[in-house]
Order: sequence, then structure tokens, then C-alpha cells
Amino acid sequence: MAVLGTAAVEVLIPVAALVGIAFALLQWYVVARVPVPSHAGEDGGGGGNKNVREEEEHVEEDGMDYLLVEARCAEIQRAISVGATSFLLTEYKYLAVFTAAFAVVIFVFLGSAQRFSARPGPCAYDPSRECRPALANAAFSAVAFLLGAATSVLSGYLGMRVATFANARTALEARHGVGRAFAAAFRSGAAMGFLLASSALLVLYAAVNLFGLYYGDDWGGLYESITGYGLGGSSVALFGRVGGGIYTKAADVGADLVGKVERNIPEDDPRNPAVIADNVGDNVGDIAGMGSDLFGSYAESSCAALFVASISSFGAEHNLTAMMYPLLISAVGLLVCAITTVVATDVTEVKGSDEVGPALKRQILISTVLMTAGIAAVTFLALPPSFTLFDFGNDKHVKNWHLFICVSAGLWAGLVIGYVTEYFTSNAYGPVQAVARSCRTGAATNVIFGLAVGYKSVIVPIMAIAAAIYASFRLAAMYGIALAALGMLSTIATGLAIDAYGPISDNAGGIAEMAGMPHRVRERTDALDAAGNTTAAIGKGFAIGSAALVSLALFGAYVSRAGITAVDVLSPRVFVGLLLGAMLPYWFSAMTMRSVGSAALRMVEEVRRQFDTIPGLAEGLAVPDYATCVRISTDASLKKMMAPGALVMFSPLVAGTLFGVETLAGLLAGALVSGVQVAISASNSGGAWDNAKKYIEAGLSEEARSLGPKGSEAHKAAVIGDTIGDPLKDTSGPSLNILIKLMAVESLVFAPFFAAHGGIIFDHL
Amino acid sequence: MAVLGTAAVEVLIPVAALVGIAFALLQWYVVARVPVPSHAGEDGGGGGNKNVREEEEHVEEDGMDYLLVEARCAEIQRAISVGATSFLLTEYKYLAVFTAAFAVVIFVFLGSAQRFSARPGPCAYDPSRECRPALANAAFSAVAFLLGAATSVLSGYLGMRVATFANARTALEARHGVGRAFAAAFRSGAAMGFLLASSALLVLYAAVNLFGLYYGDDWGGLYESITGYGLGGSSVALFGRVGGGIYTKAADVGADLVGKVERNIPEDDPRNPAVIADNVGDNVGDIAGMGSDLFGSYAESSCAALFVASISSFGAEHNLTAMMYPLLISAVGLLVCAITTVVATDVTEVKGSDEVGPALKRQILISTVLMTAGIAAVTFLALPPSFTLFDFGNDKHVKNWHLFICVSAGLWAGLVIGYVTEYFTSNAYGPVQAVARSCRTGAATNVIFGLAVGYKSVIVPIMAIAAAIYASFRLAAMYGIALAALGMLSTIATGLAIDAYGPISDNAGGIAEMAGMPHRVRERTDALDAAGNTTAAIGKGFAIGSAALVSLALFGAYVSRAGITAVDVLSPRVFVGLLLGAMLPYWFSAMTMRSVGSAALRMVEEVRRQFDTIPGLAEGLAVPDYATCVRISTDASLKKMMAPGALVMFSPLVAGTLFGVETLAGLLAGALVSGVQVAISASNSGGAWDNAKKYIEAGLSEEARSLGPKGSEAHKAAVIGDTIGDPLKDTSGPSLNILIKLMAVESLVFAPFFAAHGGIIFDHL
Repeated sequence: MAVLGTAAVEVLIPVAALVGIAFALLQWYVVARVPVPSHAGEDGGGGGNKNVREEEEHVEEDGMDYLLVEARCAEIQRAISVGATSFLLTEYKYLAVFTAAFAVVIFVFLGSAQRFSARPGPCAYDPSRECRPALANAAFSAVAFLLGAATSVLSGYLGMRVATFANARTALEARHGVGRAFAAAFRSGAAMGFLLASSALLVLYAAVNLFGLYYGDDWGGLYESITGYGLGGSSVALFGRVGGGIYTKAADVGADLVGKVERNIPEDDPRNPAVIADNVGDNVGDIAGMGSDLFGSYAESSCAALFVASISSFGAEHNLTAMMYPLLISAVGLLVCAITTVVATDVTEVKGSDEVGPALKRQILISTVLMTAGIAAVTFLALPPSFTLFDFGNDKHVKNWHLFICVSAGLWAGLVIGYVTEYFTSNAYGPVQAVARSCRTGAATNVIFGLAVGYKSVIVPIMAIAAAIYASFRLAAMYGIALAALGMLSTIATGLAIDAYGPISDNAGGIAEMAGMPHRVRERTDALDAAGNTTAAIGKGFAIGSAALVSLALFGAYVSRAGITAVDVLSPRVFVGLLLGAMLPYWFSAMTMRSVGSAALRMVEEVRRQFDTIPGLAEGLAVPDYATCVRISTDASLKKMMAPGALVMFSPLVAGTLFGVETLAGLLAGALVSGVQVAISASNSGGAWDNAKKYIEAGLSEEARSLGPKGSEAHKAAVIGDTIGDPLKDTSGPSLNILIKLMAVESLVFAPFFAAHGGIIFDHL
Repeated sequence: MAVLGTAAVEVLIPVAALVGIAFALLQWYVVARVPVPSHAGEDGGGGGNKNVREEEEHVEEDGMDYLLVEARCAEIQRAISVGATSFLLTEYKYLAVFTAAFAVVIFVFLGSAQRFSARPGPCAYDPSRECRPALANAAFSAVAFLLGAATSVLSGYLGMRVATFANARTALEARHGVGRAFAAAFRSGAAMGFLLASSALLVLYAAVNLFGLYYGDDWGGLYESITGYGLGGSSVALFGRVGGGIYTKAADVGADLVGKVERNIPEDDPRNPAVIADNVGDNVGDIAGMGSDLFGSYAESSCAALFVASISSFGAEHNLTAMMYPLLISAVGLLVCAITTVVATDVTEVKGSDEVGPALKRQILISTVLMTAGIAAVTFLALPPSFTLFDFGNDKHVKNWHLFICVSAGLWAGLVIGYVTEYFTSNAYGPVQAVARSCRTGAATNVIFGLAVGYKSVIVPIMAIAAAIYASFRLAAMYGIALAALGMLSTIATGLAIDAYGPISDNAGGIAEMAGMPHRVRERTDALDAAGNTTAAIGKGFAIGSAALVSLALFGAYVSRAGITAVDVLSPRVFVGLLLGAMLPYWFSAMTMRSVGSAALRMVEEVRRQFDTIPGLAEGLAVPDYATCVRISTDASLKKMMAPGALVMFSPLVAGTLFGVETLAGLLAGALVSGVQVAISASNSGGAWDNAKKYIEAGLSEEARSLGPKGSEAHKAAVIGDTIGDPLKDTSGPSLNILIKLMAVESLVFAPFFAAHGGIIFDHL
């Protein structure tokens, strides 16, 4: 039917994934050529290649002992890496217990849906045929869940390793200019992005093929089980984001409140006892947490698309090429992103600080344009010209170019979200400048303006998401939505590269400061970091936008699987769910904000205690006790991630079991439409405050200089705003998108159970 | 069929309303017996009764010239009253133009639904019968709209007059002790509450009877037109809340930022140029705006209940007694509230500062318990034992005790909301104390904790609302929801009394400070004011809770009238509406927050300018230029209320006309479920910050004293939190409940037009 044959598909997908991995390793290799003294030996590729040393003559101009500086860099890098590794390993130990337990829950619940019957039964969507027993689905779902969790852990962990490998190298490169520092940070980000995107695709592809050995023709059962992969990915991401978010912001807020506000010492000053914890936090929160998060989104949107396709004509007709359309899109995405990355690293060059932001922005644009062509190619090569899709029990007739529009709608909506986010969070534009200006009258007006900017930044992204939803929903029902989500995530490798670039630069700045590099090095890393704040906000925008689309697709799949024919707001069960669902993001944020707040309080007390009791610390004559601060963050994060995690994991189970499938449907819709807004506004308010502060510090305009310098009243007000924004943009906000999609995928996985046994309470009323 | 005959109904309702008005005048008369020197002559009842003078011997102990103090009181009161009156009259001038124009819009849109046909047509819900022409409905809807707008203006204006009459008297009474000051403030609040609740009932009752002269048997048309009354009420309330909110918070924030933070002078110090504007603001925002708001809720819930009843068996069978059930509930509510008020003013007595909060809390409890009995009586006297209600095209069989449960569910949900709000915003409990404690580490942690408290405070109220919705929805469909809303508002007179008491006490404190009364007088008014902050939060909780119920009832009525059979989230039109609707509260809040922020910036600059340029001002030797500050607030408020007002007024019109009735239904549901959360959390965060600050200032515990005194670092941090909370709790938050219900009632009024001509864009796609 289509041009692309089955064999071609079976080659293209794994090959693209392997190319992606090779590309990642290449980037890593290039970064590794920057030498860091070898007693930081645990970073395997670190030592070698003395060739670049020849450039270091002009480094010595600074009149500093570069060997000492490099040694200090290595030492700090090691401390950060050890801290991050030890935290993640502890966190993953907890998660191992949780995932094992939850895998059992999945098996028991799904098994009990058909009373643990091991006999084949009629297929859910075609009762005339016979499908694999529910017990098999239960077992394979649990396995897929574990697989997703493991891949998510791997994504987070690898990301952290890359980042802690790259941070010192970026700092060292910054001595030679902004351009080289940018290249180092960006290449490292790309290494992480490609590793993650490729392995996500590869594992999913392998799982489909392995599960297929058992399932054979029962594609419905196969792809139903595969959705466990998405659930596993997002479950780990939830704890990663929340735990990492609490860790990093407790340290960051604590460090800033005493260091910058009370003691008037610079950010990342080595005298500050919380400074190592702060830099560890960037790696476990913004890198590992974010990696798991985007992996989760990718896995879920693929699973949602595959599931819906399996109950459509693609599945019924066993058209493998068409069935694999979602994975083909991702495969092509990897190739497109590789080309895009080469443009940034080898074709163009960043020469000054002011070129960093535009270079990153160009990446998004190039990948979007190229990907549009890629989508067109895949669509016309892999799909039959027309076919039918599942539309809540009806058949919907669709043409292949309809799907092209669906995928592209998501892709371009992502671009719009990215650009709007940039407008509201970059200090090159009016909104952040107005926030900075409001610091003139103190912290209160700064916060009021920042909140207003965050609220306002919601408008256009929501409209873009709404437009993408309407178009793809109309053209291809729930499959269209899943494809739109995939479209937005198709350039995930570039998105992750840009996203990871931020915390790497942030860390590099920290290392430069702590290692005592000259002031202008710090200025360069600050310029990278300011652009990084904006790209982080853009990354969060993508994460949230794609989460909204993914959740809606999963929601649709859940509704189909649970056998609901309409989610009518006029039914009291649905409306009550809608109202309670819209409340959940607030409940969740209350927990995470409070956790960060109280952990930060403890951090502040510890930092103050050290300054008060360690003689010579304030003068830089004594070394602070970094380890205690690391322990405070670790303890707080591991303890406090439980409650919000439990809220998200148990809400769908409780709602589905006690109140039934309709209330749960309402709950999902409510959490989705409310959570998206809270998440976007929280991220962007935080980004705006952060960059308003940086705007004043950098003195980028006449006005900015009149507000500064560091330590002025206006700057202090800006620091307060930045501190408030920290938990909003790095803990609550980004965790909310996981809340939205995790509840949806969990509902989908448990749908057979809820449909069979759910609604105990309402049914008895 | 029922015990209560038609004649009894026709007597009971107007008599109860007149009793309410008489009771209000009685309270006013008692307050007026407190003398204020007669050159404050514009306050009619002010001068008289020299009897209370005998007690003033011990006032002279203070060693102050009480005649001078009283004269100053009178002067300040006059300035506040003149400022508030002139602002409201200007605002109402703008509103007159708007309402006139919008009345024309209503007439044209509704008239065009049937091409301005003046011929009678088939009834909407019973095509076999003949009903009044659509043109008549258009005209009467416009008239009802104007009537509602006028009553809303009256409510706001009368409230402001009562409050500016009472503020100085409360301050003067505070010289004799907390008890007398409390009595004065509370009686004045009651005067406002009863005036408003009674006139709302009376005007509605009169309108129903007058319109009935034309409509005769066509009750469908009659009550459809009557819904215009609710729209009018809420439209004025919207501008009142937004305009008043911007006014009061621009002044408040501006005054605090310079006065308390920079100049370290006390709140309400007469040297502060913004102090008069601040006190005017309390009266035009918290009093007039809130009065219009609650009038709007009351009018809408009555209209929603009447409309649904008219298309149920009550209407079809022309059972007047049953039809008037909603108004009978309100009538009994007035009598119950009168008894409740007497308990506070004459039966019990407030002896110390710590008895104020409990006394107010007791009011809510007593009125709720008594009202439950009242509802039972009305239900069994006025309703037939069983009947049928309209349930989206089907008949629902209902027993009279079902309706008792519906009304009571709303009433008791209100109590739960009130008590939970108190818990989260009163400084007698843990949450506010934790917020205060977090000030130890600065403004940033204070804000983080305050936001978390606001988010957390959403949980239980939403559950209470959800439970009330589920119960009443299940028992009596949309009529049940409307009755639950009415139940929550049935004790509105007491609610308003408690609510108005707050700003009156606040003003009294301001007057005491400005008039130079002794410190302990100020302490007493501060105690009243702290309780007032909590009651204000409770009042907002009621307003939001009832708005949620009202909007849902109106939403149901709209859906019926627009001929929609299901609002299915799985339809792209509905889902897109849902998503965009959930975004509207953010857009709206962005506008209002920014307006307050930028007006406050201007205010700060003006206040700084005056301190810098008027010689001797800081030392209290010169008089500041109060008028300029009043003008800044006035200009900002009138200019900036337009855009948010337009957003709310036009969103339903645009959505309905361009995208059709289903998208509009989604929009309403989305705005409802999202807006409720934003509104509750904004109000309660603000309340918590305000009382955390007061907790530190008052030094109410060992811990509080360790954080204070005024001027300490922790106190400064608390002031910043309080300032951020100001626009959240007094501008954005309370305006959002109007957004929710206004969009719903507007959709209902325009439903015939949308059903006939809506959805231009989607229909062409």
C-alpha cells in the first residue's frame, strides 16, 4: 500500500537510533578533548590530548597560576559529581522499591479485572476474534512498566553524568572566549539529548518486537501492554522532578538568602557552605529530572499513538509500516536534529555574548523547518493514501495528508510556545525589563509584576495548543492529538540539547567563581547562563505543551479503553471530577512549595550557623562544611518527595476505584486544563524574575545600570523575586506537567480494572 | 397542594423585605446616636443625642483635648466620605453609559434571534402552546438588565454611605472599649447587609409581578427575561470590584511602600499623602464593590432557580407558591439573620479583643443552624410532597425533602468554607503562624510559604463545594444546584454584616491614627481589624463558593436554553472551550495585577515626591497634598477597569458568536473550575500574609514578639508579603468570582441568539 516496505521500516528505526547514539558519543568525544587534570580521574575520558595546551599562553596573561586554577576546577567538579551521583543512587534505591511494589499493584489490579483468568478471551475491540488472556496483559504491562522506569532512570543518570563531565570543561573553555564555552556546553547538551532520545526509541522498538513474539497477531493486547512503558517512564520522572526540584531549590534558595542578601557575597562564592549543594542540585534537578520528564513525555505520546493506531485500521489490517508511523517520525526527528546540531557546532560560530540567545533560537527554527519536510516525507512514504481511524467507537475516514497536518500542528505549536516563552522571559524584551524596572519600588512590586507576567504568558501558548488540538482532533480524532504531541517532541534531541545547555552553563559559572577564575570568565559564563535561563523556560514550555497534548491523547485512549461513550460535563459525576481535578495542581503545588520553603529554612539556618561558628569563614580563610548542606538537601528531598508523589500516583486509583470511570475522566480533564495554566505561569514568572535580576546585574542598558549595581536596593528586590521564582519554576511548575500526563497514562493502564470494578461509592449512593 | 396559600406568599415576601429594611434603619439609628461634631453635617443623622457625653469624663484621662480629636475625626470622615462619593459618582457615570449601550446590545441580539418578529411564537419548551414574541423578551430582558444594574449601583452606594457614616463613630466608640467599638462597627455592617438583602429581594419580587402583568401565563418568557436582572447586577459588580479593587490597592500599596517600608512611619499616619486615598479605597472597593458583588450572586442564583423552575412542573402547572420557593427562602433568611444579629448586638457582649473573632464566628454558626430550621419550614409549607423538575429534556421526579437537602447542602458547605478559610487566614492557628515564622529568613520565604498556604486552603472548600454539587445535582438536577447556591446565600444579611464590619474597622483605625487618638485606641481598632481581615477572607470564601454554585446553575440553564443535549469533553469544540476558559482567569488576573502594580508605582513616586519637596512634611509640620493621591487612584482605576471588564463581557459574546454554543459551554465550564481555585488561593494567600504581619505587630505570643517589633527585619519581610497579597486578595481574587458567574449569566441571556446564529467560524471550517 505504501512506498516504504516492512523491511525498510525494520531497518530504518534501529539504524536511526544507533546513528543518534553515535552522534552523541561523537559530541562527547569532542568535549572530552578539553583536558581536566587527571586526578579528577573518575571522569573516564577526561585526561588526554595535550594539543589544546598550545593555546594557553594567552591564558596566562591573567597573571594567575593556571595549573592551580585547573586543579581547583577538577576538585570542584569531582565534588559536584560525587554529590550528584550519590544523591541519584540513593534516590534510585527508593525508586527501585517503589517501582517493584507498583509493578505488583499493576499485575494484581489488571489481573483481577478478569479474575486472574489465564484463558484467552474475546478481543476488547473485536469480540469475534480471540485475544491473549488478561493475565498476560497484566504481566506484560508490569514488565513494560519496569522497562520504562529503567529507561527513565538511565536517561536521568546519563544526563547527569554528561553534565557533571561538561561543567568544568565549559568553565575552562570560557577562558578562551564565549564561543568556545558555548560550543562545549552545547555539545554536551547535544550528547545528552541524543543519548536520551535514541535510547528511548531503541528500547521502545525492542520492547514492541520482543512482546510481539508472544502476542503475535493480537496487536490490541500488545500495544495495551506497551502503555506500561509510558507509565514507568513518567513515574520515575515524577519523583525525579519533585525530588530533584526540592533538592536544587532548597540549596539555591538557602545559599542565596544568606550569601547574596545577608552577607553580600557573590553567587557561587566558595565561602558559602551551600554552594556545592546548589551546583549538585542543578545536575540532579534540572538535568536528571528534566531528562526523565521529557523521556516520559516521549514514551507516553508514542504509546498513546501506538495504542490508538492498534485499534484502528492500521492495527486491524496489520499494516506494520503504517503502525510504526509514530516511531518513524521519531527516527527521522533524530536525523533532522543531528543536522541542526551540526549547524550550531560546525557551520556557524558564536562570537560574542549577544549571539548566544539568537544561536539557540535559530536551532529551534531550523529543526522545525527541516522536520516539517521530514514529516512530509515519512507521511507520504509510510502511509496509505486513505484509511480509517478509531473515533470513540466510530470509524473516521482519514487521508494521509491529514496526519501530516496533525504532526506539523504540534511541531509548529511548539515553536510558537518557544518563541512566546522567550519573549516573556528574556531580558531582551519589554516584559522582563518592566519587571526589572518595578524593582525600583521594592520587592513587593517586583513580585506583583512578575506574577502578572507569568499569568499573561499563558494566553498565546494556550491558544496555540488549542488550535493544534482543534485541528488534529477534527482531522484524526485522538490519533491526531497523539501525533501532534509526537510532532512537538519530534525534535526532542535538539530541545534537550538546548535545555541541558542551561544548567551546564550555570554549573560552569559556579565552578569559575569557586576556582577563582578571572572576572571576565565569570562574565562570559553569566552571559551563557542568562541565555540558559531563557532556554530553560522554553524547554519547560515545550515540556508543558507536549504534556498537555500527550495527556489529552492518553485521556482519549483511556476513555476508549474504559468503554465510556461520552464525558458529559452535565453529569454530576463528571463535573465533580472536573472540579476536583482542577484542584489537584494546587494541592500538589502547596506540598512542593512548602517542602522547598521549609528545606530552605533549614539550609539558611545551617549556613548562618557556619558563618557564625567557623572562624575565618567570612574572610575566606577557612573551608566551609559543604557536606552538611548536601545532606540537608538530600534528606529534605527524599523525605518530601513522597507525599506529592503519592498524591499523583493514588489520585487516579482512588477516583477510579471509589467513584468510577466517569469521575476519573472528569478528574483527568480538570487536572489537564487547570494544571497547564499553573505550570506555564509558574515557569515563566520564575524565568522573568531570574532574568530581571540578571538584567540588573549585567547592566545591559542605561536603565539597567541605573537600577544596579549588585547590592543596590533594586538589586536586592530583584534577588527576592528570583528566590521566590526558584521553587515555582524549578519545582512546582515542571512537576505539574508530569502530574497531568502521569495521571492520564496511569488511568489508561488501569482502565480495564476500573471498567470492571470501579465506582464502589457512587454505585452504592 | 401545599400548606402555604398564594395570598400568604404574596404577603410574606414583601413583608419580610420591609422588616429587613426597618431592621437596617434601626441599626443605623443606634449607630447614629454616637455624636460626631455637626460640621460633618452632611451625615444627616450625625449631630444629635448628647446623652452619651456623660461617659466622656474618663475619656479625658488621656490628657488630650477630646473636642479637638472629635473635630479632627469629623474632618477626616468628611474627607473620606467626599472622596468615596465623588469616585463612585464618577464611576457610575461611566457605568451608566456602558449599561445603556449594553442594554441596546441585549435588545438587538435577542431581537435578531427571531428577526425582530413581534408576533407571538410557539413556546421554547412546549411548542404546542403560544408564547410572547421574542421581541418582547428582548425588550424585557433589557429592562431587567437595567433594573439589576440600578439595584447593584444602589447596593454599592448605600453600603459606602453607611460605612463612611460609621467609620468615625467606631473610632470614637473605641475610646470606651473594644465592646462598644465592635457594636458600632457590627451594627453598621448589619445596616448595610439588611438594606442590601432586603432591597434585592424587594426589587426582584416587584419586577416579577410587574413583568407578570404583561406576560400573564407565559412564565417561560417571564423568567427568561428576568435573568437580565442577574446580568445587570453582575455587570455593575464587575466594574465595581475591579475599579474599586484597583483604586484601593493602588493607594494601599503605594502608601505602605513609602510609609511603612521606606519612611518607617506607622500605617495611616496623617503625614502620608496616600492615606486618605487608602481609606477612601476601603469604602469603594471592599464595601461598595463587595456589596454589588454579593447582590449580583444573590440576583443570579434567584434568577437561575426561577428560570429552571419555570420550565419544570412548577411553571407548567402555574403553582405560584412552589414557583416562589427561592424567594421564600430568601425572605425567611432575612428573618433568621435579624434574630442572629440581635444575639451579637444585644444578647451577648464583646468584652475583650480576643472575643471579637469568636463572636463573629458564632454569628455564622447561629445563622446556619437557625436557617436550617427555616429551610425545613419553608420546604414543607410551600412545596407539594412530590413533583417533577426539568433535567435537560427529561423529567426528574423529586420529593420536597430532596429540595430541603439541596438548600441545606449549600448552606452548610458555606459554613465549612467559612471555617476552613478562618483556619488558614486567622493568626490564631498554625498556617498563619508558620507564614509569620518564615519571615525570619526574609521576604522570599514569606512569599513562598504564603503561596503554599493559599494553594493548600483550596482543598477542603473545593471538596465541600463538590459534595454539595453532587448531592444537589443528583437529587434535583440543575434546580438543585441553584437552590444550593441560594442556600449558601440565604444568610447573606449576616454574611454582609460580618464582611462590611472589616473595612469599617479598618477605616476606624485609620481615623484614630490620623486624629491623633491615644495609642490604646489604635490597639483596639487593630484588634477589630485583625478579626476583620479574617472575616473578609471568610466573606470572599462565601462569595467564591456561592459564585461556583451559581455559575453551575446558570451554566445548566444556559445549556438547556441553547438546546445543547450534552457537553462532551471528547468533542474538540468543547475541549478547546474548556482549555481556553481555564486560561481566562489568568488573562484577567494578569491585567488586574499589572494595573494595581503600575498604579502603585505612580502612587509611590508621588508620595516620594511629596516627602522630598514639601518642607516639614516628614516632621509633621506641613500638610500633604492628599488630593493628588486621590486623583491618581481615581484615574488609574477608571482607566484600567475597562480592559478586564471588556475581556469578561466580550468573551462569551465572541465565543458564542464565532465558535458556537458548544465551545461556549466548554468555556464556561473551564473558567468555572479553574477560576474558583485561583480566586480561593489568591484571597487566602493575601489574608494569611496580612494577618502574619498583624501577628508580628501585635506580638501575640512569645514567638511573635521574637519576630517583632515593627521595623524589625522580619516585620519588613512581613510587610512585603502583605503588600503582594493586597492586589491578590482585594483585586484579582474577588473579581474572579464575578468573571465566573457573569460569563455564565451573560451566556444564558444571549442563549437564544447563539442558538440561532452562533458558531460562524467553526461552521465554515
